[in-house]
Amino acid sequence: MENNKCNFDGTHHSEELKKSMLNRLSRIEGQIRGISRMVDNDVYCDDVLNQIASVESALNGVKKILLEAHMKSCVVEQILDGDYDVIDEILKTIHKLM
Amino acid sequence: MENNKCNFDGTHHSEELKKSMLNRLSRIEGQIRGISRMVDNDVYCDDVLNQIASVESALNGVKKILLEAHMKSCVVEQILDGDYDVIDEILKTIHKLM
Amino acid sequence: MENNKCNFDGTHHSEELKKSMLNRLSRIEGQIRGISRMVDNDVYCDDVLNQIASVESALNGVKKILLEAHMKSCVVEQILDGDYDVIDEILKTIHKLM
Amino acid sequence: MENNKCNFDGTHHSEELKKSMLNRLSRIEGQIRGISRMVDNDVYCDDVLNQIASVESALNGVKKILLEAHMKSCVVEQILDGDYDVIDEILKTIHKLM
Repeated sequence: MENNKCNFDGTHHSEELKKSMLNRLSRIEGQIRGISRMVDNDVYCDDVLNQIASVESALNGVKKILLEAHMKSCVVEQILDGDYDVIDEILKTIHKLM
Repeated sequence: MENNKCNFDGTHHSEELKKSMLNRLSRIEGQIRGISRMVDNDVYCDDVLNQIASVESALNGVKKILLEAHMKSCVVEQILDGDYDVIDEILKTIHKLM
Repeated sequence: MENNKCNFDGTHHSEELKKSMLNRLSRIEGQIRGISRMVDNDVYCDDVLNQIASVESALNGVKKILLEAHMKSCVVEQILDGDYDVIDEILKTIHKLM
Repeated sequence: MENNKCNFDGTHHSEELKKSMLNRLSRIEGQIRGISRMVDNDVYCDDVLNQIASVESALNGVKKILLEAHMKSCVVEQILDGDYDVIDEILKTIHKLM
């Protein structure tokens, strides 16, 4: 699946998008660590479940940004190159994400 | 929302469950760090999206365990104590998680 | 699974709730018929997909109402009766719905 | 949103796909009618919730087929025609469906 022509580096929005993604991911990592602390400190389960819902929502944000970037760069480029397999690949991924 | 009678500590499956939860959360934290590295190294977006789907599935596992523990301890106990507000609370949480 | 003590009929909100549910379900049935007509008339797929998203959202509404009614009547009653199997049953259902 | 060049009629898999979609939708319509009957007959709520989960899963099947058909025909064609707005349109739809 490695595809050197088509990744963050190969797109014009590269650096800005990467920074935004890395910031979001680092916040999510902190949220997960926070949930571990909550579990360790016997915090009320309903509060822990709510924190998990927050992480899911934050992950959803990353997913949307990444899916948009992928569709607008890699998917379009590969279709223009006549490589339609990218459609089956992205459909499989979308089904997993749904 | 703090509720001292009803948390991991107050349930009989406490230590085993906490350990399993903390292990799962620590693996998820590692997966998130891995996704950050993928983004940083310009790995192909479709592979990154698939890793996000894996994290979602791992989070789902944590959610199920925690929801089950919460329902079987706190929710039951509070209902037996005549505190039916716990139902509205858990319904709100379930809606967020759906 | 038939349980005569615990259904719409056995709850105090019975008639109002049943009517609201039946209205929502009849609207959803109409939406599905509308989608069939769209497919039959070769309407643009993206518009059909949006209609499916509307049905999912309407079904979600029915699900929430029904889950709330179930938790507040049957689940509470069975817990008070000492029948804790209802918890495993509802957890299995919630997992399917998530 | 009407787009005459790009619908079921304009694709090579047209008739077979339409029939399969219409069959699935007609089965879903029947399932919804069945749920109305269950509600009307005061069937145990947990069983009704499980039937709703079945409808969601059946709708998911329709969604996948339709999304695949749309991506492989309309989306590809419009990208090849230089009309990249189709990407924003499909991303918006995918977000609603997720």
